[in-house]
Amino acid sequence: MLEKLLAAADAAREPCAALPAGTRAEALRRVADALDSAAGDLVPLASRETNLPERPRLHHELERTTFQLRLLAETVTEGGHLEVVLDSPDTCWPAGGRADLRRMLVPVGPVAVFAASNFPFAFSVAGGDTAAALAVGCPVVVKASPGHPELSDLVGSLVTSALTSTGVPDGAFGVVHGFEEGRALVVDPRIRAGAFTGSLEGGRALFDLACARPDPIPFYAEMGSVNPVFVTASAAAERVEGIAEGYVASFTLGAGQFCTKPGLVFVPVADAPAFESFTAAALAGHVSEPLLNTDIEDRYAASLAALSAHPAVRVLVAGEGVAPSLLGCDAADLLAAPADLLTECFGPVSMVVRYSSEEELLACARTFRGELAASVHGSLPDEAVSRLVTVLTERVGRVLWNGWPTGVSVTYAMQHGGPYPATTSAGHTSVGTTSLRRFLRPVVYQNMPQALLPEALRDGNPLGVPRRVDGVPHR
Amino acid sequence: MLEKLLAAADAAREPCAALPAGTRAEALRRVADALDSAAGDLVPLASRETNLPERPRLHHELERTTFQLRLLAETVTEGGHLEVVLDSPDTCWPAGGRADLRRMLVPVGPVAVFAASNFPFAFSVAGGDTAAALAVGCPVVVKASPGHPELSDLVGSLVTSALTSTGVPDGAFGVVHGFEEGRALVVDPRIRAGAFTGSLEGGRALFDLACARPDPIPFYAEMGSVNPVFVTASAAAERVEGIAEGYVASFTLGAGQFCTKPGLVFVPVADAPAFESFTAAALAGHVSEPLLNTDIEDRYAASLAALSAHPAVRVLVAGEGVAPSLLGCDAADLLAAPADLLTECFGPVSMVVRYSSEEELLACARTFRGELAASVHGSLPDEAVSRLVTVLTERVGRVLWNGWPTGVSVTYAMQHGGPYPATTSAGHTSVGTTSLRRFLRPVVYQNMPQALLPEALRDGNPLGVPRRVDGVPHR
Repeated sequence: MLEKLLAAADAAREPCAALPAGTRAEALRRVADALDSAAGDLVPLASRETNLPERPRLHHELERTTFQLRLLAETVTEGGHLEVVLDSPDTCWPAGGRADLRRMLVPVGPVAVFAASNFPFAFSVAGGDTAAALAVGCPVVVKASPGHPELSDLVGSLVTSALTSTGVPDGAFGVVHGFEEGRALVVDPRIRAGAFTGSLEGGRALFDLACARPDPIPFYAEMGSVNPVFVTASAAAERVEGIAEGYVASFTLGAGQFCTKPGLVFVPVADAPAFESFTAAALAGHVSEPLLNTDIEDRYAASLAALSAHPAVRVLVAGEGVAPSLLGCDAADLLAAPADLLTECFGPVSMVVRYSSEEELLACARTFRGELAASVHGSLPDEAVSRLVTVLTERVGRVLWNGWPTGVSVTYAMQHGGPYPATTSAGHTSVGTTSLRRFLRPVVYQNMPQALLPEALRDGNPLGVPRRVDGVPHR
Repeated sequence: MLEKLLAAADAAREPCAALPAGTRAEALRRVADALDSAAGDLVPLASRETNLPERPRLHHELERTTFQLRLLAETVTEGGHLEVVLDSPDTCWPAGGRADLRRMLVPVGPVAVFAASNFPFAFSVAGGDTAAALAVGCPVVVKASPGHPELSDLVGSLVTSALTSTGVPDGAFGVVHGFEEGRALVVDPRIRAGAFTGSLEGGRALFDLACARPDPIPFYAEMGSVNPVFVTASAAAERVEGIAEGYVASFTLGAGQFCTKPGLVFVPVADAPAFESFTAAALAGHVSEPLLNTDIEDRYAASLAALSAHPAVRVLVAGEGVAPSLLGCDAADLLAAPADLLTECFGPVSMVVRYSSEEELLACARTFRGELAASVHGSLPDEAVSRLVTVLTERVGRVLWNGWPTGVSVTYAMQHGGPYPATTSAGHTSVGTTSLRRFLRPVVYQNMPQALLPEALRDGNPLGVPRRVDGVPHR
């Protein structure tokens, strides 16, 4: 099965790369239409396999997924993602003159996509990684999540039919199941890039395999993150109750099973008692949701127990089973043992960290190595906050002001990534239109005749793509 | 020494990132001016240490190096490399609305640069990697090439003075020597990216160290390449003598010590005798040059002897010592044993491969895995050549028409890279203005107040950088 899919993906490499952008866009739109039409089957199946509620969650996630496909279709039609740069020939150009040089990005070839368990639509078989790879003309082999195998096959068959109906070559898309199949996929010479959403352990293991190949390939793993939130003294003084309510809503969303869950909130020690009791009060009214599956529930229980048992940790709210929990600690303890206290705990728990000075808050911010997002709740003017934003910019992919990290919109500017261990490739994003860049690489043609050039590079710009010409942006 | 440089580079990380583009540009121009002014000292020293001739070679290389610094200065001033994307807030945006999102690229932090032996200016202490990293606001620690240690120190001191005179923070730049120092550099947690030009063995070893770190970092190694040249039947019939002359000029340039040297030329079997004798005739008039050092000379002799001894290889011209050599083989043999015959041989030798049909030529093109450049000598119309260009596009970073791969101009569109083993990162280039992308990563600010935003992202575009706004390119 795997061998057949890989051989087919390899055979589809050239024909997929040759598909016009319009065909690829139409294919993505047909996939989106097919998924939307099948919502009545897909959503109940997803709910049964993942324990996630049909409404609003899974319906919204499916809408997001099909919107993502349509937005990437629009993006590849526009063509800015090709990053076309043209140099006209110039014998007077310094350092030896220059030829006629025409650069664009081309697809890397077959991509292995490793689906996540916690977003059965948006980060799974027809999710962002698959959409981005197909959009730019790369065949895709998805390794399905063991958490929703039937849904994966149903979505897979809808994708295949939609692609076939658009004339996309056979072999452009396939789904496999199984741990060993995933390992085989990432080391296969026909696979040219990998994308993953999931745990640090899983992502790192696959990244290591990708790098150790005789011919290493890029492996874009989006992994764990604690997504710290920093509440300044002025914000706490102004609106501690509202911040506590927003905090609870964010860290319990989807039963805390989001990679953007705020895992830590830093609160001034003076405001901490009030913040903690408002948080506990908000949690008291919270209706618990089951976790994705018993495996994840067991792992949550174990990591929560380990964190709760740490001598520096206070258990502020001990949720029973999957009911949300709240932990607490002091910034000084976190600074003394960051490796112990900065671990991601996948599920409905978060920790309040009491800090005693702006210097201590900055020191805490500096302990982070790589995060998907960091949030600052502040109010201006505030001299110290600018320093904090600078420190966070060096460590995260997204910096929020007076907001919460959950809820990653699919847009042109979105960045969902960050330095390791948030991802294995801080230079890229797995959400938003610039996610296409992961599956592209530059090629330049030197003095190539018009007839042999890709259309996007020809004189007169027949495709109307944005281009930079002799150093100047043109349209 | 190394520890002191690393601590200083780490301390310089934030202040370097905060330097305005104008200051960074001015710093690069002062470095360029300092190097140009010191040409009278630098060039003779470089020649003494590398055996390369002062004129035209080293003077040209120095000019190229200082032009590169000035072009990157111009590029960061313009600001297109920041890839600014802005989304205005929109509650009606599908899939849950969107916030005010402002994305740009930011510097990754301290970069380790591993200098090459074969370009003592352009790919060394003040070469393209250093220029690109400094241009975007990353501190640099250079590991000098053992091939030109005195030159490395002299260039290093000129760079340091020029940077200091511009107000660039201490610690933004340093030079170390030694093999073990290089290994220590790439695994140090303060180093956030690496760049390398040199051998496959060296590049791969450092790449492996970078990937195996507790926190892996991107490592951009530009390594070996055989840069095949494909002569079509029509081109051979038309101008076999001219192609032979161009071939000799290209593969003997710099004594064959260019990473873009054409290591193989494919010629139709019918034209091969003529091509080989024109090539031999051109070689007869060639004046030999010494290689960079005895170490490289020994390795050249060994790899040439090994290749010459292969049963499929014909020795067409046996150059004595460093005099150019010419080898030959048949395409069928190359297809039978590609791993034996596609190895890079660093020095003044190349191989003529006789092919017997268009199908065989295409099959040969498909054996390449990753090359910096591939050249096609053809004449239009020719149905087969379009297929050849498609096959090459999938395998190389630069495709040339009726040209030779040596001579990589520093321009906006240039791509000097390619799939492994040409580089460890096919998605990037080490030459040209897009080389800046290696040392940048995206960050998005969500609902951030104007006062806390980097200037490039503020309302009214105070820096006048190219931006994409709500999906549309603007200036």
